[in-house]
Amino acid sequence: MIFTSDNASGVPAPVLAALTRANEGFAPSYGADPLMDQVRAHIRALFEAPEAAVYLVATGTAANALALATHCPPWAAVYCTPIAHIEEDECGAPEFYTGGAKLVPIAGADGKMDPQALAARLETAAAVGVHNVQKGMVSLTNLTEAGTRYAPAEIAALSALARAHGLPVHLDGARFANALVAEGCTPAKMTWRAGVDVLSLGGTKNGLMGVEAVVIFDPAQAWEFELRRKRGGHLFSKHRYLSAQMAAWLEDDLWRDLARRANAAAERLEAGLATVPGTRLAHPRGGNMLFATLPRAAHARARAAGAQYYPWPPHQPDDGPEEEEIGVRLVASWCTQAEDVDRFITALRGEG
Amino acid sequence: MIFTSDNASGVPAPVLAALTRANEGFAPSYGADPLMDQVRAHIRALFEAPEAAVYLVATGTAANALALATHCPPWAAVYCTPIAHIEEDECGAPEFYTGGAKLVPIAGADGKMDPQALAARLETAAAVGVHNVQKGMVSLTNLTEAGTRYAPAEIAALSALARAHGLPVHLDGARFANALVAEGCTPAKMTWRAGVDVLSLGGTKNGLMGVEAVVIFDPAQAWEFELRRKRGGHLFSKHRYLSAQMAAWLEDDLWRDLARRANAAAERLEAGLATVPGTRLAHPRGGNMLFATLPRAAHARARAAGAQYYPWPPHQPDDGPEEEEIGVRLVASWCTQAEDVDRFITALRGEG
Amino acid sequence: MIFTSDNASGVPAPVLAALTRANEGFAPSYGADPLMDQVRAHIRALFEAPEAAVYLVATGTAANALALATHCPPWAAVYCTPIAHIEEDECGAPEFYTGGAKLVPIAGADGKMDPQALAARLETAAAVGVHNVQKGMVSLTNLTEAGTRYAPAEIAALSALARAHGLPVHLDGARFANALVAEGCTPAKMTWRAGVDVLSLGGTKNGLMGVEAVVIFDPAQAWEFELRRKRGGHLFSKHRYLSAQMAAWLEDDLWRDLARRANAAAERLEAGLATVPGTRLAHPRGGNMLFATLPRAAHARARAAGAQYYPWPPHQPDDGPEEEEIGVRLVASWCTQAEDVDRFITALRGEG
Amino acid sequence: MIFTSDNASGVPAPVLAALTRANEGFAPSYGADPLMDQVRAHIRALFEAPEAAVYLVATGTAANALALATHCPPWAAVYCTPIAHIEEDECGAPEFYTGGAKLVPIAGADGKMDPQALAARLETAAAVGVHNVQKGMVSLTNLTEAGTRYAPAEIAALSALARAHGLPVHLDGARFANALVAEGCTPAKMTWRAGVDVLSLGGTKNGLMGVEAVVIFDPAQAWEFELRRKRGGHLFSKHRYLSAQMAAWLEDDLWRDLARRANAAAERLEAGLATVPGTRLAHPRGGNMLFATLPRAAHARARAAGAQYYPWPPHQPDDGPEEEEIGVRLVASWCTQAEDVDRFITALRGEG
Repeated sequence: MIFTSDNASGVPAPVLAALTRANEGFAPSYGADPLMDQVRAHIRALFEAPEAAVYLVATGTAANALALATHCPPWAAVYCTPIAHIEEDECGAPEFYTGGAKLVPIAGADGKMDPQALAARLETAAAVGVHNVQKGMVSLTNLTEAGTRYAPAEIAALSALARAHGLPVHLDGARFANALVAEGCTPAKMTWRAGVDVLSLGGTKNGLMGVEAVVIFDPAQAWEFELRRKRGGHLFSKHRYLSAQMAAWLEDDLWRDLARRANAAAERLEAGLATVPGTRLAHPRGGNMLFATLPRAAHARARAAGAQYYPWPPHQPDDGPEEEEIGVRLVASWCTQAEDVDRFITALRGEG
Repeated sequence: MIFTSDNASGVPAPVLAALTRANEGFAPSYGADPLMDQVRAHIRALFEAPEAAVYLVATGTAANALALATHCPPWAAVYCTPIAHIEEDECGAPEFYTGGAKLVPIAGADGKMDPQALAARLETAAAVGVHNVQKGMVSLTNLTEAGTRYAPAEIAALSALARAHGLPVHLDGARFANALVAEGCTPAKMTWRAGVDVLSLGGTKNGLMGVEAVVIFDPAQAWEFELRRKRGGHLFSKHRYLSAQMAAWLEDDLWRDLARRANAAAERLEAGLATVPGTRLAHPRGGNMLFATLPRAAHARARAAGAQYYPWPPHQPDDGPEEEEIGVRLVASWCTQAEDVDRFITALRGEG
Repeated sequence: MIFTSDNASGVPAPVLAALTRANEGFAPSYGADPLMDQVRAHIRALFEAPEAAVYLVATGTAANALALATHCPPWAAVYCTPIAHIEEDECGAPEFYTGGAKLVPIAGADGKMDPQALAARLETAAAVGVHNVQKGMVSLTNLTEAGTRYAPAEIAALSALARAHGLPVHLDGARFANALVAEGCTPAKMTWRAGVDVLSLGGTKNGLMGVEAVVIFDPAQAWEFELRRKRGGHLFSKHRYLSAQMAAWLEDDLWRDLARRANAAAERLEAGLATVPGTRLAHPRGGNMLFATLPRAAHARARAAGAQYYPWPPHQPDDGPEEEEIGVRLVASWCTQAEDVDRFITALRGEG
Repeated sequence: MIFTSDNASGVPAPVLAALTRANEGFAPSYGADPLMDQVRAHIRALFEAPEAAVYLVATGTAANALALATHCPPWAAVYCTPIAHIEEDECGAPEFYTGGAKLVPIAGADGKMDPQALAARLETAAAVGVHNVQKGMVSLTNLTEAGTRYAPAEIAALSALARAHGLPVHLDGARFANALVAEGCTPAKMTWRAGVDVLSLGGTKNGLMGVEAVVIFDPAQAWEFELRRKRGGHLFSKHRYLSAQMAAWLEDDLWRDLARRANAAAERLEAGLATVPGTRLAHPRGGNMLFATLPRAAHARARAAGAQYYPWPPHQPDDGPEEEEIGVRLVASWCTQAEDVDRFITALRGEG
């Protein structure tokens, strides 16, 4: 009953097997391995983007920070939501990599950026002079940090605003696969067709050990990205081990299968929670992550039964008066078992 | 016959097995995995440094740049050799992570820093005022980038100079294991007993997929290191996969065994080269890396036989008049086979 | 009728005279001029701070950004109001100088930081881990950017919160003199006795050509400040011209006289506005700056009469329907003439 | 007898008068003052560069660091001489402003960059990959830091090499006027016609209080420069005081007159030194600065007579055995008096 994060999960057998295969003999370093050629071709085909530059790094923070730094100058603003991972959870990595760009929160419901709020802010920013931080870029997250999902049309609406001001758009896709299969659309439709310029394509939360792709749809910035990656210490010498994992993940649509499993587990969670009196969701579920308010009595029962998950917002005391409520985050992963979900719901309901 | 780099090698079976074992079930993220506790305890014991802070990252550049940034302010100098990896091969990562510190080359023979040259430079720097970059720290590499080796006493002599000026000392140990087993001394003697404050302990070139430890002997800077690591995007969420590799590497002294194998292969190379007419070493061999001057005719024969290695300095043309010479770098790794060495020597000798 | 900014004003005769005197002969460079000794002694005496480090720079942005960088690490937050000059008007200079620290707006009425909001934010920040930007420092502005004024007790209350979390406090005193004379207290009471660690003491808006002092009450950070100043290009070789201006400004209490004149002109403005139907102040006046809402008809009359001032918030159209209102900022300076104020009021009232 | 630096000098009467004139009434801030229009037009005309962007800052370090940052990315090298001011005397300001670019010293005699050494280095750098700091730009200084002078053809030769590699060229003209009048050529010939892209045009050492112009011949980077200037805290609110000084300096060719005076004083020094037995110049004189080797006995006599100048290289002891020599730097300024030169020579000769 581990619902702390999808990064608490392991990797599926095909990924381990791919590592073993890739381990044979010697291989060229620093991304010149043949598996990377395969990964690049596969991602370009999947995204219908034959010119796209494709790179691998090991962490989502690296993917995001490098993507932002490549597209936003130091004196400009990155518009994101107040709960964006880049704003809240990367210890200032975007500021570090960009050389001091300013993250500017744009409000919105359910973790999504409100187009009107963005439009208003861009309008204001359009008139500023040399004294002010300039307009820089827009960064969205899908799945959002609230576990909700942008439809492609929603992304397109925000991108259109960005584009009207000449700004590039970044998509933090730490849970891109979960959003994609929930939406049931093509990768292209969720990204460049919706105006996305650069994508952090997350593998780590969805079955890899620590591999993220950065997909730059317009390759003009590709060489700059490579230099920033190296300079950030994110270019792997034994790159084949990243390539191998990513290749296995893409093969036979494993990545979407894994995401479907995680989403299905979350759906089961959602259905179960609906049967727990006094429980409600904070946001509509977009994929594999739920934010719920629980009666503290139910929470105490789940804890006693061994369920693990985070209070949300963090830093609420784990203990509290039975008559109160507690907010929690519940994340399902590709390996979350139905029986664990059921045991958790049973514990919450006090039937255990 | 691959002598391009030790990073072209794979990983030994126990490392793969450890990954498989570590993959079971869920695990706490971001370094809170139990395997990391084991790694920390093991490294502290090995180095006889019960207070040392121990962290894992995935690349040597990250290890070095973070170690430097944690110990050197932006307005200060990092003294290193002109061929130091941090000076030559990291695309300015040290400058990026330190916020613009200045790498100041100190001359010396065979890739080692000359104590007199360091003393002279520190003397000059001791008298500077606000207009000048300040004294910052000293960074040494062992094995050096010339394939040679500092004895502990040599490190201690340089450290003593640093210490007399209040400067910390970093040791880039990308090939620390190779130096250690060649020297036959304890890890403590090669590091903190010789005045080293922070060590980049390289695993990647010696049998891991991409794992380096940073060992900070005085833990006062530990929390700053953790923040810089996160901010640099180098904190792994699924940290267990780094821990597992490092734990396997340390277990049963695997790390030293691997280094001994690499050194032995290099020794065989050295002995073989001595039998190739017109060939000579550029520097005495310290471990698993050789720099040699070859007759171009011999080089052409080796190439024809399929041997791979880099001209050194780089960018010498691969082809050239038979009567000329070419400088090359030859790196042996833990998995370099004796028969490959022998075939290479045979090819060089024209007996193939 | 120039009410655009106090930086549109010139300098009084004693400052020009001091420049002329200081111009005689040769003088030591880079702050070693005897006039700087005089300035340092004078400021220490004025602030009853015999140990304080005192430095001069030429712009308020430099003073602020250097003060912040010296007291806040790159991975930490600077808490300020949403309208703080450092947040809004310095094109990211604080981010640049700190190496990417994060400015975190804390709400409050009338341009003042709300202690409860600060307490709440610090409470949250106290519990964060390595993933989050850390607590860094608090930066207040007095006069505030809304033209209001903190009493020393208000500063002390905010400082006490900062101190309870181990955070230093910066005071942006671009209009410190105006606040001080309005409050009628000692410099010490407004600063270090109220918990301020570092002060940007503004001369430029109050009668100098471009001179600001930075006063660091605990000199432990002094040498770091000097290095950052040099490295930022803010150490003047012909420093005597900064010293001379500052010395003249302090002499015979000129600085407070100038501030009193500016405040008196603003008081006259305030009294006059009270006689203009349909006009009201957005915030209580703290010194020499007013924010008012005017009927557009009155605004049009003032414009027609030649009055200059900025719409506030900026970027409101200068023209608009007569029945609407417009927000404006009106800043008086040491050289604002009573007759100009009266002409402006007359124009607003339509009596011109 | 002050020969420490040209920045120990004051400013001539027309500059003071211009400040007084400019002080009248109110003026637009931040460079919108009419005097700046005049300065811009004047500099464009002087340099026959009608499109050039022209900006004022207060220090040479600011001018240089901003010019470099605007033309060189963080991951690239700035090629300069080992004694360049940007390398030796700015406490890492170029590294700070560029975000960590690497200053790479290129050897040469008499403070001038050797074209062959530059060509060789560029050749090497042309072949590097992602692991290495990239080619960035070339920065020359005229007068050089050795007091020598590049002829336009020498600058053109170096610029041609830079251009062949696609690199921009910066000219640090802290003593540009001294070089120009000594060479007797037009400003255009010394700059853009010789391939210079951006010039730091020094006023401070040649009669201003602290004003330097940055002239960007291709204005494509102008807006970026403005943002970097603001962000660096180098945009003056009361900009008219910079403009006024620069306008007075340019008027009636004052700037060249001042430089001629300084050069003439240095010429007198040179002639005088030739009469002091045991004295010789370290470098041929290019303008107003001399490096000489003096017998210590002569040096002691000059010191005793009150002469002020710096040992060079710095940090040689002022006292030493009479039979030894000491290297010194002697700088003349626009206000150096012939009689002071003569007294100095007399003292050196022991005739005082």
